[in-house]
Amino acid sequence: MENYNRPREACGVFGVYGVDEELASTITYFGLFALQHRGQESAGIVVNTNGKLHGHTGMGLAGEVFTPEILRNLKGNSAIGHVRYSTTGSSNAKNAQPILVDYARGQLAIGHNGNLVNARALRDELEASGSIFQTTTDSETIIHLLARPCYGDFSDVLTKTLRRLRGAFSLTMLTPDSMIGARDPQGFRPLAIGKLGDGYVLASETCAFDLVGAEFIREVEPGEIVIINEKGINSHFFRKDRKKALCIFEYIYFSRPDSIFDGKTCHVVRRELGRQLAKEHPVDADIVIAVPDSGNSATLGFSQESGIPFEFGFIRNHYVGRTFISPTQVERDMKVKVKLNVLPDVVRDKRVVIVDDSIIRGTTTLSRIVELKKAGAKEVHVRISCPPTKCPCFYGVDFPTSERLIAANHSVEEITAFLDADSLGYLSMNGMLKACGGKDFCMACYDGNYPVPFEEQVVKNALE
Amino acid sequence: MENYNRPREACGVFGVYGVDEELASTITYFGLFALQHRGQESAGIVVNTNGKLHGHTGMGLAGEVFTPEILRNLKGNSAIGHVRYSTTGSSNAKNAQPILVDYARGQLAIGHNGNLVNARALRDELEASGSIFQTTTDSETIIHLLARPCYGDFSDVLTKTLRRLRGAFSLTMLTPDSMIGARDPQGFRPLAIGKLGDGYVLASETCAFDLVGAEFIREVEPGEIVIINEKGINSHFFRKDRKKALCIFEYIYFSRPDSIFDGKTCHVVRRELGRQLAKEHPVDADIVIAVPDSGNSATLGFSQESGIPFEFGFIRNHYVGRTFISPTQVERDMKVKVKLNVLPDVVRDKRVVIVDDSIIRGTTTLSRIVELKKAGAKEVHVRISCPPTKCPCFYGVDFPTSERLIAANHSVEEITAFLDADSLGYLSMNGMLKACGGKDFCMACYDGNYPVPFEEQVVKNALE
Amino acid sequence: MENYNRPREACGVFGVYGVDEELASTITYFGLFALQHRGQESAGIVVNTNGKLHGHTGMGLAGEVFTPEILRNLKGNSAIGHVRYSTTGSSNAKNAQPILVDYARGQLAIGHNGNLVNARALRDELEASGSIFQTTTDSETIIHLLARPCYGDFSDVLTKTLRRLRGAFSLTMLTPDSMIGARDPQGFRPLAIGKLGDGYVLASETCAFDLVGAEFIREVEPGEIVIINEKGINSHFFRKDRKKALCIFEYIYFSRPDSIFDGKTCHVVRRELGRQLAKEHPVDADIVIAVPDSGNSATLGFSQESGIPFEFGFIRNHYVGRTFISPTQVERDMKVKVKLNVLPDVVRDKRVVIVDDSIIRGTTTLSRIVELKKAGAKEVHVRISCPPTKCPCFYGVDFPTSERLIAANHSVEEITAFLDADSLGYLSMNGMLKACGGKDFCMACYDGNYPVPFEEQVVKNALE
Amino acid sequence: MENYNRPREACGVFGVYGVDEELASTITYFGLFALQHRGQESAGIVVNTNGKLHGHTGMGLAGEVFTPEILRNLKGNSAIGHVRYSTTGSSNAKNAQPILVDYARGQLAIGHNGNLVNARALRDELEASGSIFQTTTDSETIIHLLARPCYGDFSDVLTKTLRRLRGAFSLTMLTPDSMIGARDPQGFRPLAIGKLGDGYVLASETCAFDLVGAEFIREVEPGEIVIINEKGINSHFFRKDRKKALCIFEYIYFSRPDSIFDGKTCHVVRRELGRQLAKEHPVDADIVIAVPDSGNSATLGFSQESGIPFEFGFIRNHYVGRTFISPTQVERDMKVKVKLNVLPDVVRDKRVVIVDDSIIRGTTTLSRIVELKKAGAKEVHVRISCPPTKCPCFYGVDFPTSERLIAANHSVEEITAFLDADSLGYLSMNGMLKACGGKDFCMACYDGNYPVPFEEQVVKNALE
Repeated sequence: MENYNRPREACGVFGVYGVDEELASTITYFGLFALQHRGQESAGIVVNTNGKLHGHTGMGLAGEVFTPEILRNLKGNSAIGHVRYSTTGSSNAKNAQPILVDYARGQLAIGHNGNLVNARALRDELEASGSIFQTTTDSETIIHLLARPCYGDFSDVLTKTLRRLRGAFSLTMLTPDSMIGARDPQGFRPLAIGKLGDGYVLASETCAFDLVGAEFIREVEPGEIVIINEKGINSHFFRKDRKKALCIFEYIYFSRPDSIFDGKTCHVVRRELGRQLAKEHPVDADIVIAVPDSGNSATLGFSQESGIPFEFGFIRNHYVGRTFISPTQVERDMKVKVKLNVLPDVVRDKRVVIVDDSIIRGTTTLSRIVELKKAGAKEVHVRISCPPTKCPCFYGVDFPTSERLIAANHSVEEITAFLDADSLGYLSMNGMLKACGGKDFCMACYDGNYPVPFEEQVVKNALE
Repeated sequence: MENYNRPREACGVFGVYGVDEELASTITYFGLFALQHRGQESAGIVVNTNGKLHGHTGMGLAGEVFTPEILRNLKGNSAIGHVRYSTTGSSNAKNAQPILVDYARGQLAIGHNGNLVNARALRDELEASGSIFQTTTDSETIIHLLARPCYGDFSDVLTKTLRRLRGAFSLTMLTPDSMIGARDPQGFRPLAIGKLGDGYVLASETCAFDLVGAEFIREVEPGEIVIINEKGINSHFFRKDRKKALCIFEYIYFSRPDSIFDGKTCHVVRRELGRQLAKEHPVDADIVIAVPDSGNSATLGFSQESGIPFEFGFIRNHYVGRTFISPTQVERDMKVKVKLNVLPDVVRDKRVVIVDDSIIRGTTTLSRIVELKKAGAKEVHVRISCPPTKCPCFYGVDFPTSERLIAANHSVEEITAFLDADSLGYLSMNGMLKACGGKDFCMACYDGNYPVPFEEQVVKNALE
Repeated sequence: MENYNRPREACGVFGVYGVDEELASTITYFGLFALQHRGQESAGIVVNTNGKLHGHTGMGLAGEVFTPEILRNLKGNSAIGHVRYSTTGSSNAKNAQPILVDYARGQLAIGHNGNLVNARALRDELEASGSIFQTTTDSETIIHLLARPCYGDFSDVLTKTLRRLRGAFSLTMLTPDSMIGARDPQGFRPLAIGKLGDGYVLASETCAFDLVGAEFIREVEPGEIVIINEKGINSHFFRKDRKKALCIFEYIYFSRPDSIFDGKTCHVVRRELGRQLAKEHPVDADIVIAVPDSGNSATLGFSQESGIPFEFGFIRNHYVGRTFISPTQVERDMKVKVKLNVLPDVVRDKRVVIVDDSIIRGTTTLSRIVELKKAGAKEVHVRISCPPTKCPCFYGVDFPTSERLIAANHSVEEITAFLDADSLGYLSMNGMLKACGGKDFCMACYDGNYPVPFEEQVVKNALE
Repeated sequence: MENYNRPREACGVFGVYGVDEELASTITYFGLFALQHRGQESAGIVVNTNGKLHGHTGMGLAGEVFTPEILRNLKGNSAIGHVRYSTTGSSNAKNAQPILVDYARGQLAIGHNGNLVNARALRDELEASGSIFQTTTDSETIIHLLARPCYGDFSDVLTKTLRRLRGAFSLTMLTPDSMIGARDPQGFRPLAIGKLGDGYVLASETCAFDLVGAEFIREVEPGEIVIINEKGINSHFFRKDRKKALCIFEYIYFSRPDSIFDGKTCHVVRRELGRQLAKEHPVDADIVIAVPDSGNSATLGFSQESGIPFEFGFIRNHYVGRTFISPTQVERDMKVKVKLNVLPDVVRDKRVVIVDDSIIRGTTTLSRIVELKKAGAKEVHVRISCPPTKCPCFYGVDFPTSERLIAANHSVEEITAFLDADSLGYLSMNGMLKACGGKDFCMACYDGNYPVPFEEQVVKNALE
């Protein structure tokens, strides 16, 4: 799956509490580095220095935003961090998270992954009662709600606040004495708890634990609030009555292959998706190749199940993130080749199966097939490790609107014709569920069954 | 008056409404450039592009924060701008102004010059009712108050809000349809109105009008709100019953010599201060020299009145703003010389009068006298164009606390001895008032009579 | 093969002549982008604008050094470019190439890949006759020689100059009317010619042709000079009597898998190296995994030959190039994990074969094996797709000195023990040659037979 | 005298030898800071660290090019530095000085102030014998000549080399064991020697000595070479038979007022120029004002001699160096006002004398007079503290060509009419010489008598 006209994840969150030697910000920096694939637009860290929260945010990758000198100035035993790709809110420095505020109870920092679907209504209500908004993120709404005057301690307020939110939110929060994690009742986005020495870590994905040397304990449950402070971990549920709706696209594409989500390693699930795909859509071919790196796991499974030899047919340029491509003709022509180059010696005169994890508009897949045929491939068979992507996502994935999703308006036959493919096979809903080994998923992008109703405004934003 | 251990002004504000060709941001850029002496820490512009406000802020001089490309992206017919030196709030990017927010009535941008003295109380009250604060500036408080739910139109809300503020505030505001100027009831900080073609401009100082080619109309009156929109200028007073307390230090030092404040050009006032000083503290000397450039005007007046020839005894390095000086011994020795160099041929064997506009800690003046004597000056007589600076300012001037103000704890005789000066003369209160030609001044830094009571918190902050 | 304590290639060169629309610099930019893996320290382009050469160089990746605005200012129909990793000369801006000079015949720009082994002697000779050196690169020597007064035309001078050079050099040159390519008589480093529309391109590797849409024609032959100008391509040999000594490490590791070198695609050669390795060192195991991405091709071959299933056992972090790692303990521990993370679900309770392309000091391989065993691997068998690396390279590969090459001083048994591997197998010399399908190689790093004698100075530099 | 269409000095040089505590680069940094007015385009320092020369150069002011960290990496007891405004050679990073090279005798760094008038001929000769040029500066020529093979020690070579140069050159050089200063036989550009502790300093102007705490000893004599090393100072003359031709424009405008040149402080000379001007061109007026800061000294002299009161009529914006002005109409209008603003209260209804140090094209002076009259000045009398500038300079001053020098083609009456001035008076040649108190001057820009013949090429360059 590649950058151009493809979905991108909204954000990654990380937090650490109770580590020695004031290394919380350095650990968070590495945590963000492991989560970098979830957001490359901005990065930020807020640290607790002797009870006072302060931080640094900036546009770009974590490795660009944070210098050794900046990290040295962020000393402390607890910290939270955030990497962001904007799905709501425009792309500017003010929207970088964590958001750090002062309010009646003191200081509070928050990092948010996911999209709220009642943000506009909440914002209208808050503005009507006097709130001002300095960012265009729906995350700021959460803080305003938390700051509403309210009887009860912080835990009560948090419970009440989170009950008012609709949609997807995996949150890390930092206060002068605690780190808090919380996850929406459907559990759209992942959030995991780990142990690091005497302290604790929170992260969107477990791959961040591996890097910082933490041990994965468990995931934060949908509807759960976890408060970590000097009394240890304290957990309660702000809502338990909702049906789970884990984003199945985390398995299909988002999460790193080495992350564990809902108890299973994504690589293993993807390999199984590939096996299932080979069962459902067998083909007589010479080699099967991946669209690297996101298609690697499913391609391997397809090869194992089908017995068709696995091959490397595309070579990836690892420096692609740093290239600008402006719209002169010569550069447009290079656009698709700049990331992947075909290996003609591998595909020439071969019947090739290419396994990928989605077709969004179809134009990128088309270009790839054109390149393969130019390189001499005799046949090109496309296999997709999930059902056709037909509907936009309102819970945090940057899919385009239906108008631009080719599968929303075209049959598989029409898409096959458009792609000039020799055959095209999508994994079935059942096949996908079987491979993913569960039933608690949000699959709205495939079947249009949105588990949480959303405001008209959310649809309108998506159309813009 | 120089950078090291001397007071620095808090901020400069600028605004323009109704100019053609979408040049509002370019005009604001030049306006900020003319006001740059009022704040070099950060700069920002918010522009109205077809009813939508957006902007850019950054750390540094206006000429560093704004590139031609950034200005091109800020197209519009109206804009406000701000240059800042932090007197409240720490020195960081989040505190750069104008502050731009969304609230119940839509978008609002605000730029603030001056310090509120009841900001902590207001902030506590606002937080108690649910407000969150994302900056550490007292200016954010004003926006929160403006956003409180309230019957009435914007003008009513503004009136009510400004009545709640205590202290110094000269404000420019921008909404999707108007530009607003307002000044506190005492009129501590300046704010002037000008005409530019069919449009209007607001600025902290009239020197900004000269640069952008606007015509000075009048000052915004203390307690006045000026609303400029397509109906023209509309003015009303939110408070008229307060005694004026114009900051007399704007005359003594702050404002540029070519700015008109309270009807008088600062250069002319300063020249008169120098004349008065010569009358009060005559001296038998060969030459009179200025501490350039701030002392130039008073020195000229002193020379004219006394008949002692004016001379250039110090040469100023114009690149000083760009030099770092770190604390190795060799560099500490250069610290005072890096800005001004003595002309030995001018002062050798001469009885020299040196005119300056203040003595804060005394160390800088002492270094200057040492340099003059090393260069061969036979006598050095110090003349200060205002009374001894004895008390801190809580209305926006970054004077140090009393502990570090030499005149707060020492007699003129003691200061003379400390400076090893042959004589020292301060202008009297009456002499100063006479030269400034008015009586509506805040002179708290000289006499400790603070025209507006302030919170304990304000004093505490100043002590930090 | 990874960044830490592993060899890195010196440079990549690119050139284009005779393209329309003044796009030579843009095409060169993309060419450098495709060659970026050959040098990330600095990048540069010199363009011919209406007969006048000018250029831009800078530290960093091509995508960082060149902005759209800079490229727009480099208009022309011909250009050469260079990416550099310093093997000789220190790492600073002055050493960035192409070098552009004025001399008696006018302007000349040069880009160089490879190391000269008689640079010191030539430099001494040149200095003795009056040359001054402004860089610390051996490439500057070539220009000085070219500028020596000499009867004959440029082609003659070039021939005479290149005859005096010893060692590795693949050169692109630009003059006001021509583009020139040349390659040392042994052909250590690659250099290829392509056709782009009516014009020509030169590149270190053919993968650059694929990206810019050029057609690969042939390689520049060892000892050949190719002059491209409005008369077309003109070729002659400055030396034909030398035995070829192509760097076999280009096949093993350096070149991108999709590049064609000596007539063969590197991926295909590497796959064959893996097959050969499986034949020589069979093992009873459950899975074979690659060290991605450099080990991918050989691993696939190993799997195909041995029948042991190919698996993904390591996940690579694609943002690693942008991370700083400073030497606190916590960060040192992350150093090896920051690039690759083990997939425990894949290796747990498995007998694992890991295929890599070299062991330099052994410490990185050791860390990998430790990680695999921590993740539950029952056995770890290491297979290396080339013979033991025993000797430093003086022709442009940044191998460490023998003291730090583990295979220089230890037997395979000792290395196996050091790595705590269950078995270790290196490919034999014959096996390597068989897979590479030729005999015209420099294999000095494996057998110490240096095809071109080198100065004592070269050894001394390598030891520093 | 101001930046727009006015002459600008080429360069400033500085050097220090034999200071303790490895502070040579810090001292040089401050030396450059004091000389910053002589060149703002680039800055550089080369330091001797234990016998090895290395350095750092960059575009911009010294305070921008050097950070504390960079200076820390330039440890040593000797160093030379350079600030540059390009008069020859284009404006780019490669041309920044000091130039540091390796050649047969080892390392050599050189900083050059002045223009050679036989650079093209030397360059042709050098290129003919094989030299390559990597910069477009004439300074590089000097190094090439120094590097020519030659019997004798460095001192002999230097003598022979300098004898071949024609034109203006004040040089500082650094070798692993010495610092060298040299000045052309006519002494066009200044160069002074100072004592700092046990060590020595060299500088273009003595104001640099004041800042670093050095004691001014004497000027380097025209035609003199000064070699400073552990044996102390050694001096000899490479040429003694030339008539001195000190650039009189150093007195008129270039040098800082506090610098001593040819035994006299520039401020004192300028004040005398003003006195002389008042004698030659008396006028009945109310006030005399300066064009700050360059006209200050002459204006004071004019006031003292004439008895017409000195006043401040223009206020200077000290941040002007940091402003970009792009060519939209609104900005063009601001161009002249952005640096200086008129004080209407000072000039209204007054007969004003304005003293300046030159009229180049006349357009800036015209704008100033327009501004003064708009501000209400009744009469404006222009007095210039030197004769009409009629001829270009080929020795290092960036005057435009005759075509654009208004006085080259127009009589004083015509210029008066062009300026719409009420009167215009230039100081006479004799008056200027009298004030400058000598006869050893180059006054070619006034009388066209060029003391050193120049190549056609030099004229051609000036015309470009």
